[in-house]
Amino acid sequence: MTDECVTRNYGVGILSSNGAANRGSIIMADNTDAKGCTPEAVVVGGATAASSASPLPANKFVARMPVDRYASEYNMNHKHRGLALIFNHEYFDIPSLKSRTGTNVDSQELKKAFENLGFAVTVHKDCKLRDILKHVEKAAEQDHTDNDCLAVAILSHGEHGYLYAKDTQYKLDNIWHYFTATFCPSLAGKPKLFFIQACQGDRLDGGITLEKGVTETDGESSTSYKIPIHADFLFSYSTIPGYFSWRNINNGSWYMQSLIRELNANGKKYDMLTLLTFVNQRVALDFESNVPATPMMDRQKQIPCLTSMLTRILRFSEKPNGNKAG
Amino acid sequence: MTDECVTRNYGVGILSSNGAANRGSIIMADNTDAKGCTPEAVVVGGATAASSASPLPANKFVARMPVDRYASEYNMNHKHRGLALIFNHEYFDIPSLKSRTGTNVDSQELKKAFENLGFAVTVHKDCKLRDILKHVEKAAEQDHTDNDCLAVAILSHGEHGYLYAKDTQYKLDNIWHYFTATFCPSLAGKPKLFFIQACQGDRLDGGITLEKGVTETDGESSTSYKIPIHADFLFSYSTIPGYFSWRNINNGSWYMQSLIRELNANGKKYDMLTLLTFVNQRVALDFESNVPATPMMDRQKQIPCLTSMLTRILRFSEKPNGNKAG
Repeated sequence: MTDECVTRNYGVGILSSNGAANRGSIIMADNTDAKGCTPEAVVVGGATAASSASPLPANKFVARMPVDRYASEYNMNHKHRGLALIFNHEYFDIPSLKSRTGTNVDSQELKKAFENLGFAVTVHKDCKLRDILKHVEKAAEQDHTDNDCLAVAILSHGEHGYLYAKDTQYKLDNIWHYFTATFCPSLAGKPKLFFIQACQGDRLDGGITLEKGVTETDGESSTSYKIPIHADFLFSYSTIPGYFSWRNINNGSWYMQSLIRELNANGKKYDMLTLLTFVNQRVALDFESNVPATPMMDRQKQIPCLTSMLTRILRFSEKPNGNKAG
Repeated sequence: MTDECVTRNYGVGILSSNGAANRGSIIMADNTDAKGCTPEAVVVGGATAASSASPLPANKFVARMPVDRYASEYNMNHKHRGLALIFNHEYFDIPSLKSRTGTNVDSQELKKAFENLGFAVTVHKDCKLRDILKHVEKAAEQDHTDNDCLAVAILSHGEHGYLYAKDTQYKLDNIWHYFTATFCPSLAGKPKLFFIQACQGDRLDGGITLEKGVTETDGESSTSYKIPIHADFLFSYSTIPGYFSWRNINNGSWYMQSLIRELNANGKKYDMLTLLTFVNQRVALDFESNVPATPMMDRQKQIPCLTSMLTRILRFSEKPNGNKAG
């Protein structure tokens, strides 16, 4: 069992409370929050949480501030948009894994869509896990100071909590932890975007029909500030945990087709969460399986799923200069 | 291992392709997607996926269409905003679970914030699991035809994947499955919102400092359509999986304080994902633990996490009439 960590008021304000004025809000009008954690409140099975956790030493990590503290939007006006890594998997060494026909269409079109948004894209085909990690580590070691953000797309097989490299399965955690603020400080405070086309299980969504016949339609910046090292990540999954993800052998996967269309149509117009909401809509409304010969698989639906730790609005505004990352 | 389900082109279009014109997009300009699933492509460890899954019979479920198929925004102009259930946990029967001092502030303020947005709010205090399920089932059985949406907030202890009722732990799935489109058709196509204040583990986020000194700052509708039964859900968690969630004994939890402030300040101004992005910002920037006597717990940060299967923009526009749900 894990207790929430309880804090007490010590009556001493440690955090700035005059921010977000641009949104008319009243952040921390009282400045007595977050003062003091009572150690007895974090007892976990007889041991303190502190003893079972391994937090990093306080104030050890410092990075550049890429945008004003209370800015509503991410700074997307760096010299470069940033790196985009596509890990495209068609063939596997694992006998039970079939080849993913159609994935090259996804990969090619996604590369174009990313390039159109100004990313410097590299595609890595059919990598073994050690090669994926090598590419990821290399990307994380680069200096992203002049970049707006980072994007990683993985097109592969998957199951509950795992993705497949050519040779073995792995957890997405293995990838994204490389880009946390402590490991990759030049991306601290910048959006780190992950797009995952893969199954998350073998369950099917039979859907529900909505009928029009009965429609109801009528109708201040301080000199420094601290952020959590896990902030500013976004994960966009093709499907919800436990469920199948569908792919067309000619046109690519439902999710990647929808993501690419939305990025191409509205990528510079809407913010990222709105874009992904419309990707959800495209997948949910425009696709349905049609396999009359296999009734259990027939007329099935899919809903993607986005998980966001973003702290500002993300919009791919037009870049005046070139598109290549440093 | 789970394969993605592969679809082939049969050359027959089954889905409308002229939607989303209001966003200038080109959904399904080719209408050859999603036609036919090759059964051999879904072999899972020697058995077909279909045999291991239990999808619902095709086309069995039909519900009202609450909004035009390709509308960008949810219809928030029903007679009522809808129900909001708050499950507030302060005391537990489980000896290892400490009382959650400060939670009543969260609960009271959240109730007001929900009411301010037009919800009909009920607060359930220190429920055993059977009572939680009873309240949830009762809510799911109601007719939500005249309601815009549904909100559920849970304020309790938690750990990896589990939440705590007064007497036992449970999975959030047990709650939200009651509101899937098949079980609660009068909420089909409408937003179903979940707000969770609880730990998801015992790990701590030490944060990273961003320094200004080196800042870079300068600068059409068919008569019916089918949706996945899992569409239109939104989950807003106080923290990311595996991590602590912090609570102040006088002012309530960091996340709930931030959510309430954001809803009160901008609830009718911004869309839901933008509101929650700013909740992320408030928690990430404005709070930090201060327990010098316990260095491992000191100066720690927190980032909330939202997971969205919403398919349209959700905005709590002002309601002209009363606020009560039917």
